[in-house]
Amino acid sequence: MNVAVDAMGGDHAPEMVVQGAVEAVSELGIDIILVGHEKKIAKALNTRPAHGHISFHHCEDVVEMDESPLKALRKKKDASIKVAFDLVKDGHADAVISAGNSGATLAAGVLSLGRMKGIERPAIASIVPTEKGRVILIDAGANVDCRPAQLFQFGVMAQAFACSFLGMTDPKVGLLNIGEEEGKGNEQVRLAHELFERSELNFVGNVEGRDIPMGDVDIVVCDGFVGNVVLKLIEGNVEAMGRVIERDLMSSFFGRVALALARKPINGFKRKLDYEEHGGAPLLGINGVGVICHGSSSAKAIKNAISMAVQYVNNMVLEKMSLQLKASKIG
Amino acid sequence: MNVAVDAMGGDHAPEMVVQGAVEAVSELGIDIILVGHEKKIAKALNTRPAHGHISFHHCEDVVEMDESPLKALRKKKDASIKVAFDLVKDGHADAVISAGNSGATLAAGVLSLGRMKGIERPAIASIVPTEKGRVILIDAGANVDCRPAQLFQFGVMAQAFACSFLGMTDPKVGLLNIGEEEGKGNEQVRLAHELFERSELNFVGNVEGRDIPMGDVDIVVCDGFVGNVVLKLIEGNVEAMGRVIERDLMSSFFGRVALALARKPINGFKRKLDYEEHGGAPLLGINGVGVICHGSSSAKAIKNAISMAVQYVNNMVLEKMSLQLKASKIG
Repeated sequence: MNVAVDAMGGDHAPEMVVQGAVEAVSELGIDIILVGHEKKIAKALNTRPAHGHISFHHCEDVVEMDESPLKALRKKKDASIKVAFDLVKDGHADAVISAGNSGATLAAGVLSLGRMKGIERPAIASIVPTEKGRVILIDAGANVDCRPAQLFQFGVMAQAFACSFLGMTDPKVGLLNIGEEEGKGNEQVRLAHELFERSELNFVGNVEGRDIPMGDVDIVVCDGFVGNVVLKLIEGNVEAMGRVIERDLMSSFFGRVALALARKPINGFKRKLDYEEHGGAPLLGINGVGVICHGSSSAKAIKNAISMAVQYVNNMVLEKMSLQLKASKIG
Repeated sequence: MNVAVDAMGGDHAPEMVVQGAVEAVSELGIDIILVGHEKKIAKALNTRPAHGHISFHHCEDVVEMDESPLKALRKKKDASIKVAFDLVKDGHADAVISAGNSGATLAAGVLSLGRMKGIERPAIASIVPTEKGRVILIDAGANVDCRPAQLFQFGVMAQAFACSFLGMTDPKVGLLNIGEEEGKGNEQVRLAHELFERSELNFVGNVEGRDIPMGDVDIVVCDGFVGNVVLKLIEGNVEAMGRVIERDLMSSFFGRVALALARKPINGFKRKLDYEEHGGAPLLGINGVGVICHGSSSAKAIKNAISMAVQYVNNMVLEKMSLQLKASKIG
């Protein structure tokens, strides 16, 4: 197994990315190709013990976080994220992970590997912790506007991913809307509702914002604008609530005692909601394996994302998804 | 002051609505007209002490929660929410509050009282608690699709509301998007960004989902689909996290002790995030005062919403908003 890691992508690249890659090699026994500016990577790697399973692939360019993905990829032919996906195309690597510009990761994946049969738009599937377990949120930010058929395709891909990667059986699929009743929402969602209802998915109908953290469904489908807002709002909520609770408790003597006693369960709770633990978010719908990491990923988050990519390949998620698309008369 | 209360609207109507109205009369020294089916209201009122400041206005119909607002209002000429707004139109009442179908409340408000000059679409402004205080989320669910000019109008109305009702000075306005950089998001948001930038509002640019609970801005503008998802997601997050923390703490001895010691600050925290405390959400952009309550409103939430309507009238928010719209060359 050989994973191409975009060493230049992310707020803490290349240092944290390289460190995560080193940890992944030790833990998972795989090979890694660090794609990016060799000198910068070597500098980041120098402080760590040498490792036979890590190789370089030099390239000059990187797509910055604030660049327009398509424009940047057109201009920078040698961008690390594009080169990483080309390594998969040419059979030198089995998967790509990147903490860089997620729009560029999506675009580079499509340009190099193409879309799966029947999929108009690949999407980002994010695994979000809930009260009862976890829910797959799709699309978490790849496509700002979506046609109803595309939303339906997201649901089918997420269903295949849920079964083949997370081991779910007949996962419940909900469509994110602003009311549970049929006929609610905008035209896009109303038409998507019809497509889901006619399908063989375990479609439970419309779900609302409050149903996501409750965890009564396994898959929540929405466009990438809404999905991205949802994902970042959950992140912010957890952080803000944590700080407010802590501040409130610290303001009283009994509160401080309580906080000292409850440190272990509270840390366990934080861990449960920590995106670092869940690694990255897979890009569903391209002809290959790509995992997108949070821009501010730590070494641990990078390592977990690499681990996700490895499991993705080992579980043959791509092949199973392709079969599912055919069965749903999409692929 | 005379407030028309839609006694038939909400999951616990008319009981909870009537009880909230009775409490509001005692506390606020105002007059209330209960609009709805007289027999049903009288039954709910019977168990409570008689009150000279409460009167009835009988009507036969009610728009149910799952009805299409416009269709229902066309069919049910005598619907309580429409009759309530007509009481304002005819000078018998100063404001309307309803916990019923929010789409119907909006539509009835527009039909009876009309839109403010320059406003294409009225919007729901929801006051959301944050780490640092509170933020006004507009639109919280009235309009599923919005043109850029409409998003800009929401911002101007919310600014006037923030100053004249919440006493804010030069509130910071953010546009909800999926990235902070200019040029991010869909076309609707990109064009709205230009309108805000050219305006005299204190526009801080794009904000992301995570910025809402942090509370670094005072006003967050988005379309009603996204706003409604955000509002309900925050509600669900608070509930789910509260339960998870409690469950985790209860599973250990020290956790149970901690929970007992921390009961007071935890309850204080819950109260801060409780929508009941904040009353309802005002409908901005109609020629009159309308406050929308949560469908599952308790008596306390109804009372607080009535109190909000009273302050709204007393502070002459409508008049000040109208001046602000003129100053922004909208009205």
